[in-house]
Amino acid sequence: MFVRNAWYIAAWSDEVGDTPLGRRILNEPVVLFRDGNGRAAALADRCCHRSAPLSLGRCVAEGIECGYHGLVIDTNGQCVSVPGQRLVPPGAQVRRYPLVEKNQFLWVWMGEPALADPALIVDFPYHDDRARWPHKHTMYPIRSNYMLMVDNLMDLTHLGYLHAKTIGGNPLQHFQADMKTVRTPSGVKFTRWMRNSPPPPSYVKAARFQGPVDRLQVFEYVAPSSILQWTGATDAGSGIEPDDFPFQFRLFHGLTPETETSCFYFWSAANGYRQDDPATTEQLFGEIAFAFREDAAMVEAQQARLGELGEDGLVDINSDATRMTMRRHIDRMLAAERQQEAAE
Amino acid sequence: MFVRNAWYIAAWSDEVGDTPLGRRILNEPVVLFRDGNGRAAALADRCCHRSAPLSLGRCVAEGIECGYHGLVIDTNGQCVSVPGQRLVPPGAQVRRYPLVEKNQFLWVWMGEPALADPALIVDFPYHDDRARWPHKHTMYPIRSNYMLMVDNLMDLTHLGYLHAKTIGGNPLQHFQADMKTVRTPSGVKFTRWMRNSPPPPSYVKAARFQGPVDRLQVFEYVAPSSILQWTGATDAGSGIEPDDFPFQFRLFHGLTPETETSCFYFWSAANGYRQDDPATTEQLFGEIAFAFREDAAMVEAQQARLGELGEDGLVDINSDATRMTMRRHIDRMLAAERQQEAAE
Amino acid sequence: MFVRNAWYIAAWSDEVGDTPLGRRILNEPVVLFRDGNGRAAALADRCCHRSAPLSLGRCVAEGIECGYHGLVIDTNGQCVSVPGQRLVPPGAQVRRYPLVEKNQFLWVWMGEPALADPALIVDFPYHDDRARWPHKHTMYPIRSNYMLMVDNLMDLTHLGYLHAKTIGGNPLQHFQADMKTVRTPSGVKFTRWMRNSPPPPSYVKAARFQGPVDRLQVFEYVAPSSILQWTGATDAGSGIEPDDFPFQFRLFHGLTPETETSCFYFWSAANGYRQDDPATTEQLFGEIAFAFREDAAMVEAQQARLGELGEDGLVDINSDATRMTMRRHIDRMLAAERQQEAAE
Repeated sequence: MFVRNAWYIAAWSDEVGDTPLGRRILNEPVVLFRDGNGRAAALADRCCHRSAPLSLGRCVAEGIECGYHGLVIDTNGQCVSVPGQRLVPPGAQVRRYPLVEKNQFLWVWMGEPALADPALIVDFPYHDDRARWPHKHTMYPIRSNYMLMVDNLMDLTHLGYLHAKTIGGNPLQHFQADMKTVRTPSGVKFTRWMRNSPPPPSYVKAARFQGPVDRLQVFEYVAPSSILQWTGATDAGSGIEPDDFPFQFRLFHGLTPETETSCFYFWSAANGYRQDDPATTEQLFGEIAFAFREDAAMVEAQQARLGELGEDGLVDINSDATRMTMRRHIDRMLAAERQQEAAE
Repeated sequence: MFVRNAWYIAAWSDEVGDTPLGRRILNEPVVLFRDGNGRAAALADRCCHRSAPLSLGRCVAEGIECGYHGLVIDTNGQCVSVPGQRLVPPGAQVRRYPLVEKNQFLWVWMGEPALADPALIVDFPYHDDRARWPHKHTMYPIRSNYMLMVDNLMDLTHLGYLHAKTIGGNPLQHFQADMKTVRTPSGVKFTRWMRNSPPPPSYVKAARFQGPVDRLQVFEYVAPSSILQWTGATDAGSGIEPDDFPFQFRLFHGLTPETETSCFYFWSAANGYRQDDPATTEQLFGEIAFAFREDAAMVEAQQARLGELGEDGLVDINSDATRMTMRRHIDRMLAAERQQEAAE
Repeated sequence: MFVRNAWYIAAWSDEVGDTPLGRRILNEPVVLFRDGNGRAAALADRCCHRSAPLSLGRCVAEGIECGYHGLVIDTNGQCVSVPGQRLVPPGAQVRRYPLVEKNQFLWVWMGEPALADPALIVDFPYHDDRARWPHKHTMYPIRSNYMLMVDNLMDLTHLGYLHAKTIGGNPLQHFQADMKTVRTPSGVKFTRWMRNSPPPPSYVKAARFQGPVDRLQVFEYVAPSSILQWTGATDAGSGIEPDDFPFQFRLFHGLTPETETSCFYFWSAANGYRQDDPATTEQLFGEIAFAFREDAAMVEAQQARLGELGEDGLVDINSDATRMTMRRHIDRMLAAERQQEAAE
């Protein structure tokens, strides 16, 4: 069961160029493509003639041409041409999904089209500001429910264990962090201070810290499936504002359900330091990428057990508070959606 | 659901030599083999002792010997020897399927044996006439219902799209063909004239045409699963009879259901020109083989969608007429079969 | 359906060292590990916190540490530490399975713990006596129900067919063996004399026999899943006791159900001749290993057919007597287990 009336990331903008892209989203086959004007669209990935996937076709001026018998479907899902005949038969239509291109993403709305308000889409202008926030991005397919990755990202106590050999460092440091969590209208947000603490080696290399640092992490979950992360550090006790920290970076994490047990993990890393040096962006991305593979392997194994054995017999610990807040938020969204459907 | 009372191609004759061949047909495991006299037979691929596949055994004079405990089963499915004991236990039998070897094929009858009349088998003597019709043949396993391949072969309007880069050529040319379709007692047949048209490059190379040609294609569907194709060309306006065309070739297409969502595609290409040059046969085969891989990929993708989403919301276009005629023919065969079973 | 109140081999002792081992047994995920004292234990392979497989964690002094959030579980399945908090929540426990280490095996009890009597475990001291019985061992994963491998091992009439090209030799020789089968309290046992028979080439090479030999094979099935094999030969008519045969070896065969259609085959080969020469142990192992791959391939194919078509229409032959005795033994164990459960 998924929240349907919400915007999900269907793809990075640069994944959809001259050729169509087929992708399963909320367990429905979707084709993403651009017409002759470069306007992106999302349709059911199935020709209305003989059910061939449109993603095997090609982009044409008016929309997308089926690769089997040549029908052309426009960006609204309307068939506009059937080879070999003058008339297009009535009902020759393919389901269209609202799509918005914003901040280097193609955002799709899988629910009721009338409710698809672009104003609801998360703002992340940093992707567009390559001078101040140069970034690198990718997508990982993961064989777990998307919420297991959300849980993972919003509970950093796993760093000292799962990432002990990579970005984790000392587990104790993470438990002793000064953590403040607040609910927001669209989810939950926490700030996490690690004051007067030894900087991790990668921080030293990046910002040449000489002594202990004040570290701050800000994570904001925007339901159902976006996480905005800001991380920074400054010399301990310097007292300067986070925005002015000499070392800071931003990550975007977008999780899109493919099926109940698989998802797409869209993420980017943007460095707010040494912006002129492309190698810095590469290095930040590379260090994180390795750790995220560790996350993927763990949540996939977790999914396998949960899929087989369910939640019976599991216990919650202190650090599960954020997870439970997020689940309740999703539950409220699902309940609202069911109520809305019942009212129709 | 399959038509059971019909002959299907189980294998090319030359696929079954000294060693047994296991193949699933109409979703039943079948073993094909030859006894010491070279007589081919088809049995359930399962020893009547401990269920080991007989296809893992070996051919012996009296039939087939199970590779596990050595029971010998003859071509009628009767166990004729049990190692270590004098008597064969009553009931030691394996299901036999009627089998006929004809025109380089092993034809199998999966339905009621009493109805298995060899006279019902399609005639294709060209496979045996290697002087006049040298040919090359093969089998492609395809992950789609067999009828999706039948549909594909009997609707040539896809040539300009799916095979745009191979044998397709100009889509318009195919839509403007002069097409005549007739129902036959065993299926449907069409002739397709493309008069005074530019010959495709492969035709020019093969027959050295200097100008436009009159092209003729004849496709005959013999239900449930054979398609006989004749194709030829001559100088435009020459007025000579098709049989005398300087350039002509024949294809045989046999589709055998493996499961509801997979089939075996047996096909051959025989050239009726330059019969003395083996390279000509090779070249004709090679050009077609490439295009048939494109067909396989498309119908497999189509199968995946149809399997998930069914036929709901699909529309028919003009070129679907032949397909619908064929489906009705199959439906009548299925209805007749059910009626027959009910009467028994 | 499996006999649950029984000891099964979970692993060779040397498979579980410094790192945990995950293995599915009787269709339940199990983790095997050792604590800081080297004491082996078996738990459900699922952390009681968020269901991560414990087998992805690491061995620590007190037990096993989950690789996701660092909970520590001891060898009794009790959570003894939750990072970041002082108290362990009530109910933080993982199912423990009784485990005994004996004769180089880790034996696990998947049923009612109160009934887990170590005295019921098969004795096989030869694994511990490397001077008199040097051995080599391994485990093969097999995609068949474990009983198909038991059947295979307890019916040697397949040797002349399945292993015709390896250890089989002449089929007739096996059928003419003087075979005596007796039921035992825990299963069935047979002795099989092949008197005054030509020694197989491997015997000649190992023991330099000059003429015919008296061969003896003793196979004992201990339900549900162990087979103890002794094989030896001496010069024909020498009249010496089997224990003194110049050529003899022992095999242990342990079959542990993974699922209804897969199992683990633990086996060893110990040579009771030329004990000082490691190459002799290697050679014995190597010859047998090849034949056991043939067995695995056959029972996997048999499993596929039985899984699809069941036992309908199968007939029994003389050599099935042992198999039927074993099945009845298992059926009695299952019936006793059901009775016991009903009484509780």
